[in-house]
Amino acid sequence: MDFEFDGRTEELRAQLLDFMTEWVYPAEPVFADQARESGWSHPPILDDLRAEARRRGLWNLFLPGVYGAGLTNLQYAPLAEITGHSPSVAPAALNCAAPDTGNMEVLAEFGTEEQRKEWLEPLLDGRIRSAFAMTEPEVASSDASNIATRIERDGDDYVINGRKWFITGAMSPLCQIFIVMGKTDPDAPQHRQQSQILVPRDTPGVTVRRGMETFGFDDADHGGHAEIDFVDVRVPAKNLISTEGSGFAIAQARLGPGRIHHCMRLIGMAERALELMCRRVSNRQAFGGPLADQGVIQDWIAESRVRIEQARLLALKTAWLMDTVGNKGARTEIQAIKIVVPEMAQWVVDRAIQAHGAAGVSQDTPLARLWVAARTIRLADGPDEVHRRSLARRELRRHQPTDG
Amino acid sequence: MDFEFDGRTEELRAQLLDFMTEWVYPAEPVFADQARESGWSHPPILDDLRAEARRRGLWNLFLPGVYGAGLTNLQYAPLAEITGHSPSVAPAALNCAAPDTGNMEVLAEFGTEEQRKEWLEPLLDGRIRSAFAMTEPEVASSDASNIATRIERDGDDYVINGRKWFITGAMSPLCQIFIVMGKTDPDAPQHRQQSQILVPRDTPGVTVRRGMETFGFDDADHGGHAEIDFVDVRVPAKNLISTEGSGFAIAQARLGPGRIHHCMRLIGMAERALELMCRRVSNRQAFGGPLADQGVIQDWIAESRVRIEQARLLALKTAWLMDTVGNKGARTEIQAIKIVVPEMAQWVVDRAIQAHGAAGVSQDTPLARLWVAARTIRLADGPDEVHRRSLARRELRRHQPTDG
Amino acid sequence: MDFEFDGRTEELRAQLLDFMTEWVYPAEPVFADQARESGWSHPPILDDLRAEARRRGLWNLFLPGVYGAGLTNLQYAPLAEITGHSPSVAPAALNCAAPDTGNMEVLAEFGTEEQRKEWLEPLLDGRIRSAFAMTEPEVASSDASNIATRIERDGDDYVINGRKWFITGAMSPLCQIFIVMGKTDPDAPQHRQQSQILVPRDTPGVTVRRGMETFGFDDADHGGHAEIDFVDVRVPAKNLISTEGSGFAIAQARLGPGRIHHCMRLIGMAERALELMCRRVSNRQAFGGPLADQGVIQDWIAESRVRIEQARLLALKTAWLMDTVGNKGARTEIQAIKIVVPEMAQWVVDRAIQAHGAAGVSQDTPLARLWVAARTIRLADGPDEVHRRSLARRELRRHQPTDG
Amino acid sequence: MDFEFDGRTEELRAQLLDFMTEWVYPAEPVFADQARESGWSHPPILDDLRAEARRRGLWNLFLPGVYGAGLTNLQYAPLAEITGHSPSVAPAALNCAAPDTGNMEVLAEFGTEEQRKEWLEPLLDGRIRSAFAMTEPEVASSDASNIATRIERDGDDYVINGRKWFITGAMSPLCQIFIVMGKTDPDAPQHRQQSQILVPRDTPGVTVRRGMETFGFDDADHGGHAEIDFVDVRVPAKNLISTEGSGFAIAQARLGPGRIHHCMRLIGMAERALELMCRRVSNRQAFGGPLADQGVIQDWIAESRVRIEQARLLALKTAWLMDTVGNKGARTEIQAIKIVVPEMAQWVVDRAIQAHGAAGVSQDTPLARLWVAARTIRLADGPDEVHRRSLARRELRRHQPTDG
Repeated sequence: MDFEFDGRTEELRAQLLDFMTEWVYPAEPVFADQARESGWSHPPILDDLRAEARRRGLWNLFLPGVYGAGLTNLQYAPLAEITGHSPSVAPAALNCAAPDTGNMEVLAEFGTEEQRKEWLEPLLDGRIRSAFAMTEPEVASSDASNIATRIERDGDDYVINGRKWFITGAMSPLCQIFIVMGKTDPDAPQHRQQSQILVPRDTPGVTVRRGMETFGFDDADHGGHAEIDFVDVRVPAKNLISTEGSGFAIAQARLGPGRIHHCMRLIGMAERALELMCRRVSNRQAFGGPLADQGVIQDWIAESRVRIEQARLLALKTAWLMDTVGNKGARTEIQAIKIVVPEMAQWVVDRAIQAHGAAGVSQDTPLARLWVAARTIRLADGPDEVHRRSLARRELRRHQPTDG
Repeated sequence: MDFEFDGRTEELRAQLLDFMTEWVYPAEPVFADQARESGWSHPPILDDLRAEARRRGLWNLFLPGVYGAGLTNLQYAPLAEITGHSPSVAPAALNCAAPDTGNMEVLAEFGTEEQRKEWLEPLLDGRIRSAFAMTEPEVASSDASNIATRIERDGDDYVINGRKWFITGAMSPLCQIFIVMGKTDPDAPQHRQQSQILVPRDTPGVTVRRGMETFGFDDADHGGHAEIDFVDVRVPAKNLISTEGSGFAIAQARLGPGRIHHCMRLIGMAERALELMCRRVSNRQAFGGPLADQGVIQDWIAESRVRIEQARLLALKTAWLMDTVGNKGARTEIQAIKIVVPEMAQWVVDRAIQAHGAAGVSQDTPLARLWVAARTIRLADGPDEVHRRSLARRELRRHQPTDG
Repeated sequence: MDFEFDGRTEELRAQLLDFMTEWVYPAEPVFADQARESGWSHPPILDDLRAEARRRGLWNLFLPGVYGAGLTNLQYAPLAEITGHSPSVAPAALNCAAPDTGNMEVLAEFGTEEQRKEWLEPLLDGRIRSAFAMTEPEVASSDASNIATRIERDGDDYVINGRKWFITGAMSPLCQIFIVMGKTDPDAPQHRQQSQILVPRDTPGVTVRRGMETFGFDDADHGGHAEIDFVDVRVPAKNLISTEGSGFAIAQARLGPGRIHHCMRLIGMAERALELMCRRVSNRQAFGGPLADQGVIQDWIAESRVRIEQARLLALKTAWLMDTVGNKGARTEIQAIKIVVPEMAQWVVDRAIQAHGAAGVSQDTPLARLWVAARTIRLADGPDEVHRRSLARRELRRHQPTDG
Repeated sequence: MDFEFDGRTEELRAQLLDFMTEWVYPAEPVFADQARESGWSHPPILDDLRAEARRRGLWNLFLPGVYGAGLTNLQYAPLAEITGHSPSVAPAALNCAAPDTGNMEVLAEFGTEEQRKEWLEPLLDGRIRSAFAMTEPEVASSDASNIATRIERDGDDYVINGRKWFITGAMSPLCQIFIVMGKTDPDAPQHRQQSQILVPRDTPGVTVRRGMETFGFDDADHGGHAEIDFVDVRVPAKNLISTEGSGFAIAQARLGPGRIHHCMRLIGMAERALELMCRRVSNRQAFGGPLADQGVIQDWIAESRVRIEQARLLALKTAWLMDTVGNKGARTEIQAIKIVVPEMAQWVVDRAIQAHGAAGVSQDTPLARLWVAARTIRLADGPDEVHRRSLARRELRRHQPTDG
């Protein structure tokens, strides 16, 4: 047992921290200003940051294998954490932002050569963006068997009908390709009903209706969260990813790395909030001294630190398990971090907000936005409750009388 | 001891519930649509609602004494709760929205006849709106001795310099008058340094700089939360409210009724959220049955109900105490409801959001906005922690050894 | 709506507070000393206290109607709270201790004249004690349909077989009569299967096996909590309370008042703990000042105060509802206080323990015992979870679409 | 970074798990029976277990260096966890029970050859037991500068006066030696005032007054928690451990390993409680199915699992830090596990109790005792609050403006 990062990781961490200090943090206010006027497109300064990141070799770090940087989950995890210090800017600057990351993983692992050429290459290159269209407004999408969108074979084509919402990134005009999840065979066994298919944005029948808000934010600076109608949308059969009925399995495959990315970024966000809290309470005076002298605030700080440390260790162990025994062997831990990390991050950010007073809820600190990010992730990929129940059932089975 | 409302209260409750059903709830979607296009002004439908409320005698219910409906705190409290079922529409429709309520109370109690004629009358009439400019960006305003804005006598005038923010309502062009809190004598004893003064919006030197956001919301439909600069702003001496040095006492006087209003509205908001949660989980299916069958969700519902009941009783008792022994005798309870009610409401709304999934954080339900209202009130009028500490000190004194 | 106690209540409160100060608190250390040597009998000083309480007219206050003091639930509730300040001594001193109170209520309401003469009179007189034998070790007794004890008619007798445990008071040699709950007809509808029957302690086949402990306490000073075997126990048919099949209904009837008693006593216990905490932290020095100056401890005190106030109002409202609309109309509230009050009391006592350091967990303060009392009541009469679920279902029905 | 145990650890884990299964668990009921009749001595079966453990080489595993098994903290930690599965029996069986472990560490590291020969040898051999007398009834011992016991030089002797309580193990007649902490120089700098000195139990002036209880338990089976008077107790000067003024430093040195031991055992206790909970809810029926099907109970199980996993990783990292950068470099983590682990264990055990109903609080399961162990450790070595504050201050310093 050893808690030190390996050499490659330490080297990349150092390079990334330099990039954060020299480029990302200074760009934050510019990014925010430009965001007010760039509509659903990204603020132009992002292009400069992306060019610089690429120049420094800090590009596609998330992607294992030959198409990306080739890092293990355990190696990428602490880098993802660092990008969480500036979640509006850093992940996009490194071409490591969701949902493109998951989409690129899927194309790299399951795509045909043609699919990879047409969509993976421009994504790796940062020329376009992509979306993953799974969640639907009419059903509890946490139960995959609820999905109502249909993908029906018709000759050499598939025809897609359904409504999706909260499709992150899809409001951006750069977002050229959607991976759509739907049912090809509603009568198949529960986890063989779904398929995933590539739908170019400009296909007839695709209507991007509006951006969904999260607590008043439209997240336009990274492409928002679209509601999209698919009405008799026809694409060639070769657009199917892998085979009919493999949609659930593909979705599962992207979940593991996605969790590590999300969770490590959230840990970075919590660290940022804790740092802001510490600075604020050291500088702000009330009732005869700095807020930092108040016991209740010290309690928040201590609790934040111990929660962050624990969550990080669990996320890193999960990454290690994925690297060593695979996603299936890490199933309990992959669920565990989904349960633990967003709630932890939300708690820490909430305390930082409280320590900031009115400024904490305003546009003058990143805290309100960080809080919303943590809160909404507790609903994404299935609400906490679904994961808790599933994890509990596995635990119960471990202690069955027959297991002695 | 008797837990029944009196006849006048029951009568007004019935009338108000009718108005809610017939006018307010149907207006909510229209209000929301219009709000998208009405900038910092209120949605036009509000004018119809206000006319109707007035016609029905549901107007200025909050105001005791001759200028208003003459209700006690205990009589008005359950009416305020009902307006909380639709907090964006109902309070404004009844001319019972903060901060106008507190400002009218101050003018009614402390204003000169001239001040009442010039400002109270149009406010009671609903022709203008008003703001209360206390909070400052540079200091922890929970400690009143921190206030940096200066109000200096210069001949027959006062000259005001300072910066205020989160001045609710002040972005509305209808908001014609600001009550500004500042220091007239920084060398006086701590609670005699401040004064309050009337500053018309169009006075030279007043600059309304921007609207502050709360978790991404600008609250434009009720006048936002402005940041305002006061640079050498000169008003006649007769604009002072009451006497020099009475600013802190006037602020205290408005606190008590304001707490009842806020807290009862929050209780109404919690009831609305609980109702939405119950309906949602009854209608939504997952994993083989309605969400309402899941034990964890039943737990949220039960916990919501018991928290709401307790908080309401405490708020009603506080109103009763204010009516019978006065605000000073009710000091512990006035603090207690500030501690209890917003946290309760936030918790209930958060559970309702979780039960709604992505819809809960979006613009398609009122929940995200309700949550933000509850969360920000935990910071308004001093953060929770200030009230907890003060309440604790009073409790500790009660148990001093000398008290036996 | 009026939050003042009536005259009779205030008078009795004053008399009871005098008795607490003059007799109960001074007796506590003597009681504790004697308890170490009195085995399963009560400490002898209790007899003096009972004589004095009776002399003062503070006797059987809990019992409404002609057999008791004739108080309403709302009148008795604040008196029960006061006895909670000294839960080991005061309730017993006033002949107001569970389970005798519930048993006397049952006999007064459902007993035949003969049953009342034989058992109610000596209980009212304080000459004997009684037990209520419901809980069983082998089943989840929170689900009444699980009860396995059989009560079978055989000629002019009933024959009882079963095992009960946690039968409070039954280890005391003074405990002469058990009310036993069992099934007379396992094939009847679910709530008509059970009956209650009077079983004198010395009936052949009754074996009191041992005292059950709660967190290391045997509670010998008020008769412990017995495990009892009933093997072919034969009693005359006239010992049946009310009719066959009415056992569940009788149990329900005693629940309501029992809840008020328990809950108000717990509120008194929480007040005692808060007082002890305030005194302790005022007197104890650490890190350069009294503990009372530490923000975290002030936070506990404030939170304790606001939780106690809310819980008390809810319990009092419940008593008022029981008096005005009956137990059935108060069903939600009767469950609500079961959910709220023990948890509140446990929390307050836990904070008081923490503030006392090692002394708090020891035999030198009453805190550990108070904590155990609160914790175990969360399991008595059905665990919290059962009540939460039931309350939630009623809430869900209120918001059914058809209720519109 | 690597989350696998090394070979030596895995080997010892396997051996220890065998010993638990073959000897410890079967001995538990015998131990409990004997404990009822063995007064302050240990139950005789413990001697058999100790002989067997020694035969198997599972002896003094806790002690690094030449006198013990020579394991690192990281190697011993998972073994300590396993002993926590049976905390009343296993640690004592392996001669790894507190406070002997800490006392042996102190003697091994700071003792003279003579002291080691006289006291360390019989302790390592398991022939005697020992106590550490630090906590005092009259002061908040969490602040070491409060300690009132005096150790005064008088010729060739030291003379000790003071009162100690909660001196674990000291009620056992086998407990032959006390390490007493007191002040040799009240005028020295704060952390140089204290010294530690060896006081044989039979020294004149030593009076063991009584056993302190924790929530009704006297813990007689492992020597209880004594209150001890020291009145003019005279021991030779050579009994001093290390030098005058080094008492605080010696106490700090034992803290680190002690924390690892305590915390890992608590993690083992939490695992035991979780296992008991899972088995119970699988076997117990209510409301038409096993308790295990209820969502709220599944929630407890999932939450227990994720809390345990996180706490274990933090404790293991702390052990690793102690081994690699020393106790000083691990200061934050050593405090963090004190904050995290007992609270976690208390929470898990509390849920297991709730799932067991009345059995959970009784003597029929180990749960009540486990709960009390976890609860009291939150007060030992300084209450949580002291550690939180200290950790927060370090965190605040990390983020000072000057640290950039």
